[in-house]
Amino acid sequence: MSDGSRLSRGRRPGENRTKAAILQAARKLFAERGFDAAGIRDIASGAQVDPALVHHYFGNKESLFAAAMRLPNIPELLTGAIAENAEEASARKLGEILVRRAIRFWEEPAFQRVMAGLLRSALTRPSAAIMLREAFRKMILEELMRAVGPPDADLRASLVASQMFGLFMARYLLHVEPLASLPAQEIPRLIGPTLQHYLDAEL
Amino acid sequence: MSDGSRLSRGRRPGENRTKAAILQAARKLFAERGFDAAGIRDIASGAQVDPALVHHYFGNKESLFAAAMRLPNIPELLTGAIAENAEEASARKLGEILVRRAIRFWEEPAFQRVMAGLLRSALTRPSAAIMLREAFRKMILEELMRAVGPPDADLRASLVASQMFGLFMARYLLHVEPLASLPAQEIPRLIGPTLQHYLDAEL
Repeated sequence: MSDGSRLSRGRRPGENRTKAAILQAARKLFAERGFDAAGIRDIASGAQVDPALVHHYFGNKESLFAAAMRLPNIPELLTGAIAENAEEASARKLGEILVRRAIRFWEEPAFQRVMAGLLRSALTRPSAAIMLREAFRKMILEELMRAVGPPDADLRASLVASQMFGLFMARYLLHVEPLASLPAQEIPRLIGPTLQHYLDAEL
Repeated sequence: MSDGSRLSRGRRPGENRTKAAILQAARKLFAERGFDAAGIRDIASGAQVDPALVHHYFGNKESLFAAAMRLPNIPELLTGAIAENAEEASARKLGEILVRRAIRFWEEPAFQRVMAGLLRSALTRPSAAIMLREAFRKMILEELMRAVGPPDADLRASLVASQMFGLFMARYLLHVEPLASLPAQEIPRLIGPTLQHYLDAEL
C-alpha cells in the first residue's frame, strides 16, 4: 500500500506541471533581471505557487538556477548536428551545421531568454560563469570533439565558444546591424567557415 | 581683467586633475557594478570630490557614463592599425593587426575594466548597448572600412564585432580555458584569420 502510494505520488501529473511552471517562471526572471535581482518570491508568484514549493522542489536559488538553465534540448542539438554531419559523410560542413542548429534554438524565444539570462548572470556571478563555461565545454568539447577528434581539442573548443558567445551577443543582445536583422538562414553561411577553421585548420 | 581670469580658470590644472579623477573613479565603479548600481555619490567619493562637482563637470549619470567610456586611445588604436598595415603595403594582415592592437589594450587593467563595464551595462541598459554598438561601429566600420573599402562594409563590420565581443568575453570575463591563459601574443595568430575572412572573403 505505502509503496503503491509513493509510486503514484512520483507519477502525479500535477507535480510535473508545477515544476515546469516554476522552471519557466525562473527562466523568464533570470533572463530579465539576472541572478541577483530575480527573487524566489517573484519566481513563485510568476508560477502561481507558494515559495515554499519552490524550495521544496529545487532547494536554494543556486540549484534552481542550475535546473532552469539546464536545457533538455542540448543533447538533441548536438546529436542532431553530429547525425547531420554523418549523413554528409564529411567533417567539412560541421562548422556550418553547428551554427545552423544553434541559430534554430536561439530563434526560439524561450531558449533565447535562457541564453540571455546565462550571459547576463555570468558577467556578474562567478557561479553562473562556471555553469555557462561548462555547458559550452560539454557541448562543444566532449561531444563534437568526439566526432571530429582533432589535436588541440581544448583550444579549438574555446575558440568556437568565443565566436558563438559573440554571435549571440551581437545578434540578440546588442542588436548590431545588419547582423541582428539578417534572416536566420543566412547566418550559418557567414559564421560557419569561422567555426570550421577553428575545428580543423592548422592553428 | 575678467577675460584674463576666465582664461586662467579654463586652464587651471586642478580642473583637469579633478575631471580625470572623476572619470577614473567612474570607470572603476561602472566596471565593477554596472551602470545602475554605480551611484554618483560613490563615484564622487572614489574621486574624493563633492558630488556637486561631478554634476557640474559631467551633468547627469548618462553623460558621465558616456564621457567615462569614451576612450582617448581608440583613435590611436585605429590609426596605429591602419599605419602598421600601410607599412606592410597590403590589406592581407589587417585582421591579425587589429586583434594584436585590441589585445594590447585589453591586457591593460584600466582598459579591460572599461570594456567589462560597457559589456555588463550593455546587457541591461539599452543606452549602454547603443553606446557600445556605436563605438564599435565607428571603430571598425568608419575607420577600417575607409582603409580597406570592401563591398558589404556594414555586414563585414558587424561580423568582426561579433568575434571581437566574443573574444573579449571568453578570455577576460568567462575565463574559457585554454583561451583565457594563453600568452597575449598568441591570440592574433589564432583570431586574425577569422577577422581577415570577415574583412575580405567572398560572403
